[in-house]
Amino acid sequence: MTTQPTNPIIILVDPQLGENIGAAARAMFNLGLDELRLVKPRDGWPSLAADKNSAGALAQMQPVQVFETLAEAIADLHYVMAATARPRDMLKPVYTPKSGIEECRTRAAEGQKIGWIFGPERMGLINDAIAKSHGVITIPTNPDFSSLNLAQSVALLAYEWLRGDDDIPDKVLDPGDSFPVEQKKLEEFLTRLEDELETKRFFRTEEIRPTMKRNIRNMFTRADLTDQEVRTLHGMVSALIEQRKPPEPK
Amino acid sequence: MTTQPTNPIIILVDPQLGENIGAAARAMFNLGLDELRLVKPRDGWPSLAADKNSAGALAQMQPVQVFETLAEAIADLHYVMAATARPRDMLKPVYTPKSGIEECRTRAAEGQKIGWIFGPERMGLINDAIAKSHGVITIPTNPDFSSLNLAQSVALLAYEWLRGDDDIPDKVLDPGDSFPVEQKKLEEFLTRLEDELETKRFFRTEEIRPTMKRNIRNMFTRADLTDQEVRTLHGMVSALIEQRKPPEPK
Repeated sequence: MTTQPTNPIIILVDPQLGENIGAAARAMFNLGLDELRLVKPRDGWPSLAADKNSAGALAQMQPVQVFETLAEAIADLHYVMAATARPRDMLKPVYTPKSGIEECRTRAAEGQKIGWIFGPERMGLINDAIAKSHGVITIPTNPDFSSLNLAQSVALLAYEWLRGDDDIPDKVLDPGDSFPVEQKKLEEFLTRLEDELETKRFFRTEEIRPTMKRNIRNMFTRADLTDQEVRTLHGMVSALIEQRKPPEPK
Repeated sequence: MTTQPTNPIIILVDPQLGENIGAAARAMFNLGLDELRLVKPRDGWPSLAADKNSAGALAQMQPVQVFETLAEAIADLHYVMAATARPRDMLKPVYTPKSGIEECRTRAAEGQKIGWIFGPERMGLINDAIAKSHGVITIPTNPDFSSLNLAQSVALLAYEWLRGDDDIPDKVLDPGDSFPVEQKKLEEFLTRLEDELETKRFFRTEEIRPTMKRNIRNMFTRADLTDQEVRTLHGMVSALIEQRKPPEPK
């Protein structure tokens, strides 16, 4: 198929507090996922607590769908991952978020509809629910303290999904209205700086001079200075070398 | 240096609600970071609300250190990253979490002590604080809804840090007490299955038979069956072919 890969659908199974549903909605929508399904929310739906805790996410996302059973909630999906601790007594591939989400991306790119199921707070998914998934994603946590909350588990997987979307440049240095300095202007400044330092007898010995000069040049070059910044540096040097007396103490 | 890379230190600047400090502590400790510093927490420290919301993390982590100024909080560190939206009117390299954390890992491996600073809830870091950092990490969020909360920002960066720690196998299939079936036993089962299907005239035409057989074999082989599962399959086939009458309706 040549459809655009669609984002995964988040499915909360037996969620308890509305607050946590709201927090999960906020987290997923922050990271660009907007389709949430609920299976048997304990405190009913809609939920004022959820709305409040979603910080406006629920109002902007696609309308939440509520189902009586997990089977119904995943009926139209092609591939389901269970976000939970490694299951005992059940043969299921257990993925890291990295590799599990990669698998989801590959399938989504083929036009498959992907769902991620999350269990109720504190308890995680029961085996019957895990059995309905194609694989398990276990978020690696501190073995001494692994109480990752629901919204955070949702956020981490959504982040991992988003992370694979590599349009964003790894590093950006935005000079705003200013522009990187022309190298000749940098050179002018560095030459002037060296001259001033010579005048002040900064370079104590002949042996050390070349190395020190190189280090100074290197430092200022590495800083990727703008035009404006070089002007500022000139001003600073001018100020520093001025032989004005300090103001009288009042 | 040959020291073990130490984990980054989380620094919350001007945090407001104790609840949010607690949630941040819980998130970071879940993901294995245990050193938290606070700069001028608005509601004072220690905080009952923080303790409660940390779900026990604050009691198990290293004792939280509190500072009057950011300068003091980062005094012993070598490299500081500011987690915040892309700053305006300030020339600072802006990293994705991926590349920013990679930079931190490289430096930590050289023995540098790393800090990540986070601003107060809703507001983010002010420019004076950002100026004290070596770079900015901006978590890519939904442009229409970017209200990522403090604990979640902490969790995502901690996750990214942990993620680079590549000891964890990408995919694990743990057969528990059971063991992958010997291929000859799988072959026995597949042969039997084919025989039974022949008997039932499942393969309608000669032309289609080889392809169908291959597809069936492929399906069962791909499933990476265990010994026990193959025994179960035998039982299922036996049950299915049995010519017993259905029980009388009561």
